Amino acid sequence: MAGSTFGERFKVTTFGESHGVAVGVIIDGVTPGIEIDESYIQVQMDRRKPGQSSVTTPRKEYDKINIVSGIFEGKTTGAPMSIILYNKDMRPEAYSDIKNSFRPGHADFTYLQKYGHRDHRGSGRASGRETASRVAAGAVARKSLEGRGVSVVAFTKAIGGITGETFDETIIEKNAVRAADPIAAEKMIQKVEALAAAGDSCGGIVECRIRGVVPGIGEPTFDKLDAELAKAMLSIGAVKGIEIGSGFAAAEMQGSEHNDQMDKNGFKTNHAGGIVGGISTGAEIVFRIAVKPTSSISVPQQTMNQAGEETEIVTIGRHDPCICPRIVPVVEAMACLVIEDHYKRQAALRA
Amino acid sequence: MAGSTFGERFKVTTFGESHGVAVGVIIDGVTPGIEIDESYIQVQMDRRKPGQSSVTTPRKEYDKINIVSGIFEGKTTGAPMSIILYNKDMRPEAYSDIKNSFRPGHADFTYLQKYGHRDHRGSGRASGRETASRVAAGAVARKSLEGRGVSVVAFTKAIGGITGETFDETIIEKNAVRAADPIAAEKMIQKVEALAAAGDSCGGIVECRIRGVVPGIGEPTFDKLDAELAKAMLSIGAVKGIEIGSGFAAAEMQGSEHNDQMDKNGFKTNHAGGIVGGISTGAEIVFRIAVKPTSSISVPQQTMNQAGEETEIVTIGRHDPCICPRIVPVVEAMACLVIEDHYKRQAALRA
Amino acid sequence: MAGSTFGERFKVTTFGESHGVAVGVIIDGVTPGIEIDESYIQVQMDRRKPGQSSVTTPRKEYDKINIVSGIFEGKTTGAPMSIILYNKDMRPEAYSDIKNSFRPGHADFTYLQKYGHRDHRGSGRASGRETASRVAAGAVARKSLEGRGVSVVAFTKAIGGITGETFDETIIEKNAVRAADPIAAEKMIQKVEALAAAGDSCGGIVECRIRGVVPGIGEPTFDKLDAELAKAMLSIGAVKGIEIGSGFAAAEMQGSEHNDQMDKNGFKTNHAGGIVGGISTGAEIVFRIAVKPTSSISVPQQTMNQAGEETEIVTIGRHDPCICPRIVPVVEAMACLVIEDHYKRQAALRA
Amino acid sequence: MAGSTFGERFKVTTFGESHGVAVGVIIDGVTPGIEIDESYIQVQMDRRKPGQSSVTTPRKEYDKINIVSGIFEGKTTGAPMSIILYNKDMRPEAYSDIKNSFRPGHADFTYLQKYGHRDHRGSGRASGRETASRVAAGAVARKSLEGRGVSVVAFTKAIGGITGETFDETIIEKNAVRAADPIAAEKMIQKVEALAAAGDSCGGIVECRIRGVVPGIGEPTFDKLDAELAKAMLSIGAVKGIEIGSGFAAAEMQGSEHNDQMDKNGFKTNHAGGIVGGISTGAEIVFRIAVKPTSSISVPQQTMNQAGEETEIVTIGRHDPCICPRIVPVVEAMACLVIEDHYKRQAALRA
Repeated sequence: MAGSTFGERFKVTTFGESHGVAVGVIIDGVTPGIEIDESYIQVQMDRRKPGQSSVTTPRKEYDKINIVSGIFEGKTTGAPMSIILYNKDMRPEAYSDIKNSFRPGHADFTYLQKYGHRDHRGSGRASGRETASRVAAGAVARKSLEGRGVSVVAFTKAIGGITGETFDETIIEKNAVRAADPIAAEKMIQKVEALAAAGDSCGGIVECRIRGVVPGIGEPTFDKLDAELAKAMLSIGAVKGIEIGSGFAAAEMQGSEHNDQMDKNGFKTNHAGGIVGGISTGAEIVFRIAVKPTSSISVPQQTMNQAGEETEIVTIGRHDPCICPRIVPVVEAMACLVIEDHYKRQAALRA
Repeated sequence: MAGSTFGERFKVTTFGESHGVAVGVIIDGVTPGIEIDESYIQVQMDRRKPGQSSVTTPRKEYDKINIVSGIFEGKTTGAPMSIILYNKDMRPEAYSDIKNSFRPGHADFTYLQKYGHRDHRGSGRASGRETASRVAAGAVARKSLEGRGVSVVAFTKAIGGITGETFDETIIEKNAVRAADPIAAEKMIQKVEALAAAGDSCGGIVECRIRGVVPGIGEPTFDKLDAELAKAMLSIGAVKGIEIGSGFAAAEMQGSEHNDQMDKNGFKTNHAGGIVGGISTGAEIVFRIAVKPTSSISVPQQTMNQAGEETEIVTIGRHDPCICPRIVPVVEAMACLVIEDHYKRQAALRA
Repeated sequence: MAGSTFGERFKVTTFGESHGVAVGVIIDGVTPGIEIDESYIQVQMDRRKPGQSSVTTPRKEYDKINIVSGIFEGKTTGAPMSIILYNKDMRPEAYSDIKNSFRPGHADFTYLQKYGHRDHRGSGRASGRETASRVAAGAVARKSLEGRGVSVVAFTKAIGGITGETFDETIIEKNAVRAADPIAAEKMIQKVEALAAAGDSCGGIVECRIRGVVPGIGEPTFDKLDAELAKAMLSIGAVKGIEIGSGFAAAEMQGSEHNDQMDKNGFKTNHAGGIVGGISTGAEIVFRIAVKPTSSISVPQQTMNQAGEETEIVTIGRHDPCICPRIVPVVEAMACLVIEDHYKRQAALRA
Repeated sequence: MAGSTFGERFKVTTFGESHGVAVGVIIDGVTPGIEIDESYIQVQMDRRKPGQSSVTTPRKEYDKINIVSGIFEGKTTGAPMSIILYNKDMRPEAYSDIKNSFRPGHADFTYLQKYGHRDHRGSGRASGRETASRVAAGAVARKSLEGRGVSVVAFTKAIGGITGETFDETIIEKNAVRAADPIAAEKMIQKVEALAAAGDSCGGIVECRIRGVVPGIGEPTFDKLDAELAKAMLSIGAVKGIEIGSGFAAAEMQGSEHNDQMDKNGFKTNHAGGIVGGISTGAEIVFRIAVKPTSSISVPQQTMNQAGEETEIVTIGRHDPCICPRIVPVVEAMACLVIEDHYKRQAALRA
């Protein structure tokens, strides 16, 4: 693969640049006969789209999906589903003044090095817009997983040092930062708004919980379920780390404390985060990701231009001061892709 | 893939169980004409092998490698290299008393669920012994990377809450825990020995630094270099998390602080950890992994047996109280596999 | 993969049904910096499109391509190219009377068995229309191969028992059957027109010649260059066989006759067809494919319907009496995909 | 992949050179719980091994297999099976006089071009000996397919122009050429013995019949069942062509004659060869392959040496005058690999 394809038996290929004609996705390997329509997918798109609140960018793409293939009479056919999102509100000219400079934190420099050229229009493939394709594909996986009794929920655990302590799933979609703790949510919003006003940004932590996965899902050795989740999450641009279950806290624990003992009701604890030996235990799968602060800020920064000269750059335009709330549906989508793919791999193994 | 293969153009497939006849590895896609011999590989094997010191298990496998194919007159031919390590000092009977019980922290339960049966002899494929195959393959990748000017060094950053602060690469192989800070090393060793005496274990953190990677290595979108490193690391049994560059600390940082600004000497900081947009920047690649405490402890633990009855289990036998020092060469090996593979992918892209 | 993706480093994924909204293709792994525009690709599309002459179906799709991504300022960027062809002149209602019957020679029965349902609108993915996506992708590969000095030419060798004996490359595009022998071409056209008048169809043989491939292209063992070409060709719906070089004639030859001996000018003969041990020799690569007679005929045929009842079927509508002339560009396209991919694999091997 | 791996969910990787230490195979994705032992596999090995009769080479390798992993208590575990065959009776010195010359019909020249060096000891990976690994893997697939009710039988259809007309499956293993027609078998044997006496060789045709495959197996578009079979067969060194069902005869047929009509008992004919649209129909799958005459002959031949000088070469040593009888089990093995893999893919699709 040349990087744009994910999965083996539920196989997703994305295409399109942020400021080109469209972005989109092909999904190959969808179970035939699943009822799904555009509105089901659109719900997920709307959770990712910009402009949802004071803490997200006002760029208005709407992310209206078009299913081009793979559905017949309201059901998946098993043929590759293709979904296209035409770009609107493109303003490539907004990027013309930065076309020769490397924006700090962006992939401008590395893309130039890799490809020998650079598409300066808003990051091209490296743009967060590419994740819209993933959310569309993830929605298809999610619909299939619903039939398997699997649910996937992510939320903002922390922003800029403010950490949620409680978990109320019902409020996640009701606050602008998608936190699960209403008191922390309020503080996070204030923090983000203050940073936005200052032209700065901040990072955070997103947690994901997957319920209902039967024991036995995940391949041993290299394609462990947690390894695949790790790859999926680190493939999201702003993510700098992942931990499963106890995660980095395990580094300070003892075996007698960390091991999940069992009684006849099952595991008494879940330090493993629902995965042991790369295979699901049947317990809730829990992981957290570290999200870096948005790179695009209006604070002046020192950088280089393509001529090798030092210069200063100020990113104007429309950007999220904290990307966590919009990463939540992307995290869920990628998790859905991994789980759905591994259900299919398990079916192949046992066939 | 069914889980035992890693990489696309430098492609590694491992096989063998901990208490079977042998473990081994096939490496396909090796650049032809590289000078390599068994002794070069054996050096790495000896770093991973058990019984190196008071803090590692006394099981004596020696891990003597046998190159079965792919070498002719001292050079790689381009044909698949195969390397076999015959198991010695096998004592499957040592496991007979636990054959029906699920050892806490081990993959006994999940393997049974996945496969519908269980090879109880020392964890089978889920055993740390499988990583010997990876170290052998990693040594081949390392030899090739040396020719590219790339070096890979890992070390124990922390054990059980004791964190190294200084970095002296020259001492890593000279202390039993493979730390880079001599004072912390001493404390770590004391801690591990105390836990070993108590029949318990502890976790830690391993850091890896990769130098000399040219800018432009790594595929965008799903096969980002950090995503592939994350998968590689989480595919190691005891690893519960990974962070690249600033990692989880980024969650508390602001964009103006986190962005790596440039001057004419290059990047002024390296919060990115050497990878932006999934592609190498040319700066040092830095990541850390969380290692859980060894699951095998002699403290009695509550568990279930296959008949569904509650029981108590005590893991006797030979196990590492802290796996960090032996994970160090495995981390390096997996990092070598990822980097070598991506050099080849980049060559294909630009061809 | 779930069947819609071809290639490893030059990776092509097609989507879309014959009577849906559109068909299209994603091409991942394109070398960056190649100059290409829509008109270059359109030339190939026009060679495949229906309605070119009296011997092809009058369905007017035009096959107008739209490049959606992967091109910036007239050059490939290295990002996935996506090309969409909107379907026009769709008449799904034309298929309503056959929606419950299995058309002989078509994939109606097997698709129903595989997926548990059936998209009866003109064969869906099994339609020849899917090959339009391949021709678009093949044109991109062809442009890259031109830069490598590789040319790919296919032509109709035989139709319905009439075999061309001479080879004049300049006339291929100038006769309706794309033969390379002008006298045979005339006879073939008469034959096809007579069959068309009778509502029947016929098969034929297409030959492909690839020049300029350097020695050393092709992977040994399973991914031999001829094995990959065979897969590529048999993946075209109407193809029932392939032979490389001497092909089936080799079955009657002796080693002393078949072996290609060498002198200082190179190989004295080319029974191998330019590939030995799965690797290119530098000689012209030559293969031939067997094309079955078009399944859609207006002669009444006996079949079953989905209710399990015997019935009779007459395929009305617009179909080619012999598909050879339109398969020629598809054969070339698939050959281009294979060769381009293997140039990239070789670059990775030797990197 | 770098060429040594075949299959997606039943994944086979071979390694080893003809005159090195050993050859072998890793099989990943085997269904757990299948009863299999070495003797079952050995039966197939013995069908491929040299020295079975007057028409095969007297080289005595025995091809004794060693199962190294993947079996526990007589059943497959689901872990990768590894099987090793140590080489015996190696005489690399027998090749020393040809080490600098390119043997006509062999891969000496192309391997040198590809890898920049050459392992002259009996063809290395390009040797027919590599197929021993395939037969071992194929036996494992065959055992699984038996449980699915699938049988795979191949036989020599023609040798040097002598074609069998009748089909008696019971005699295939009872004559030296593995023909299914006893009278033709006799003539074939005489022909091969005469050629052997003259130091020459001849080609032939092998037919394969697969029964019991349920309808619906095979992926559409690129991974069609016939496309995969074609790749599998052309990946066998001596194979120059394949035809499915009617094959090249289809080129001279009309649609009204070629289409397989149906009545309530199913298909009335089987020109399709059991596969339509790349998917199994449930009818017998039938294909034939063209086998070239063995390249190694003792007739003097003109060639080049590595210094670029013209020279003459005589292949002494132990070689088959016609490879058909020994290709029969290889064809069956590869067919088993394809079918087993696609059963698993279908399970994944419908999961």
